[in-house]
Amino acid sequence: MNESFTVQNIDSVSHKKIVRYRQNSRCHLVDDVLIQEVPVALEYNGVAYTVMMCTPRDLDMFAVGFSLTEGIIDHDRDIHDINIQMSPDGITLSIDIANRCVNRLQEKRRTMAGMTGCGLCGTDQLTHVCRIQTPLESHTSFHLQKLDAVLHQLKQRQQLNQLTGSCHAAAYLNTHGELEALFEDVGRHIALDKLIGWVSKHHKQKGVVLVTSRASFEMVQKAAAGGVEILCAISAATDMAVDLAERLNVTLCGYCRPGQANIYTHAERILGLNQ
Amino acid sequence: MNESFTVQNIDSVSHKKIVRYRQNSRCHLVDDVLIQEVPVALEYNGVAYTVMMCTPRDLDMFAVGFSLTEGIIDHDRDIHDINIQMSPDGITLSIDIANRCVNRLQEKRRTMAGMTGCGLCGTDQLTHVCRIQTPLESHTSFHLQKLDAVLHQLKQRQQLNQLTGSCHAAAYLNTHGELEALFEDVGRHIALDKLIGWVSKHHKQKGVVLVTSRASFEMVQKAAAGGVEILCAISAATDMAVDLAERLNVTLCGYCRPGQANIYTHAERILGLNQ
Repeated sequence: MNESFTVQNIDSVSHKKIVRYRQNSRCHLVDDVLIQEVPVALEYNGVAYTVMMCTPRDLDMFAVGFSLTEGIIDHDRDIHDINIQMSPDGITLSIDIANRCVNRLQEKRRTMAGMTGCGLCGTDQLTHVCRIQTPLESHTSFHLQKLDAVLHQLKQRQQLNQLTGSCHAAAYLNTHGELEALFEDVGRHIALDKLIGWVSKHHKQKGVVLVTSRASFEMVQKAAAGGVEILCAISAATDMAVDLAERLNVTLCGYCRPGQANIYTHAERILGLNQ
Repeated sequence: MNESFTVQNIDSVSHKKIVRYRQNSRCHLVDDVLIQEVPVALEYNGVAYTVMMCTPRDLDMFAVGFSLTEGIIDHDRDIHDINIQMSPDGITLSIDIANRCVNRLQEKRRTMAGMTGCGLCGTDQLTHVCRIQTPLESHTSFHLQKLDAVLHQLKQRQQLNQLTGSCHAAAYLNTHGELEALFEDVGRHIALDKLIGWVSKHHKQKGVVLVTSRASFEMVQKAAAGGVEILCAISAATDMAVDLAERLNVTLCGYCRPGQANIYTHAERILGLNQ
């Protein structure tokens, strides 16, 4: 991958005057800090693909992660360059990908029967919902107790969320339980895509991905697309997330709090469970 | 609108055996109740449009609300029939719409330069992000104190969330503060679409819409598309949501808790503010 990525130096928050209502007291105009949400258009080799709402931070990692989890590329090295352009309407990520991947994009377009996709990017057919069919291999294991230290410090590490109260985070812990990376975004899928971009670029498939949100179907699909074997969520999982994790050999944990968790699938990767 | 809608009688939860981990105690296989998440394909007059992940409840209202908030129809009476079909791969909503709206869909398709849309349904151009340009008129006002009773009872009324811990809700309060409708879904946009469908069908634009989530850009756009003048969120708003609400003449409140709220825009609709 070309290392000349534009570096983002946007602080990702806005300041606005708002009316603060408190019952039985006077209303005041006060300053509030809001999370930025910006339309980000992705284009591949000059052809528009989609627009996503993102917090404008770590967009290079988002470009890599999204391209991977969408199945547009197979490796981060399939991306030759990423160019980030600002305009009054939003941000455009111009991504140059290998010719092999462009051919696949064109093929995908020809097989689209309907008009557009949404929710599940580019999907308009029920049979296309599960993009990944091959289960992951098993190369890792993890002591859930090692989550605890990170869970205790997570709030402090979510800097944007501390400022704005409205950000999700996706974090990477190595097998020793050390927090190596954390990405924040107004959207939980985007936060995970950013992290998967980082995971791919740094070959970090052996650790654990922790998300501050629920684990829905797409979150499991994204983790599997990034080769991540263990996905932990602070909140609950959906039934389809559990079914997919079972099929793709992903260990899925939910309600992860210090000292507790629900292990929905493939508990064999979790060490130290008292039987 | 044709009243022969298929009635959904799906309880929208699944039961699964999971491993419950509690530090310093034995692990047990226990029963868990998970929220259902199902791929729902929407097709208009026989042509596939998109697939969304939904909780399979109130899908007739979702069909109406989504079609409205996507700008595919102008009124719920533009929908002539909705047919709901189950298959092993998911659920298909076959929606029959007025010819005028079909022509618009085809037009939309011709002007799509790229391939697919996502996040912002069917959008691949930054300039298409804001679909609604005309500000709402002002016909209503509301005492924020009237939210309090509903905020206190909200958790009990979120039945699916009580069972599964992973559902968002969108609710409608009339100007007396009475809760008239509440829709739940694993996705916050879907819950709001369901409610907007109900609002449109029952001509309930004069009340307040309360969502249990954050207020992001699309939530404001959906409210405005449904003619809803006051949108209250339990959590924070994003900067772009505030900008859009300002422009579309929507009153946007966030961090709504008993006795308190932040009023981001158009506070003139909020009564009883002590200045």
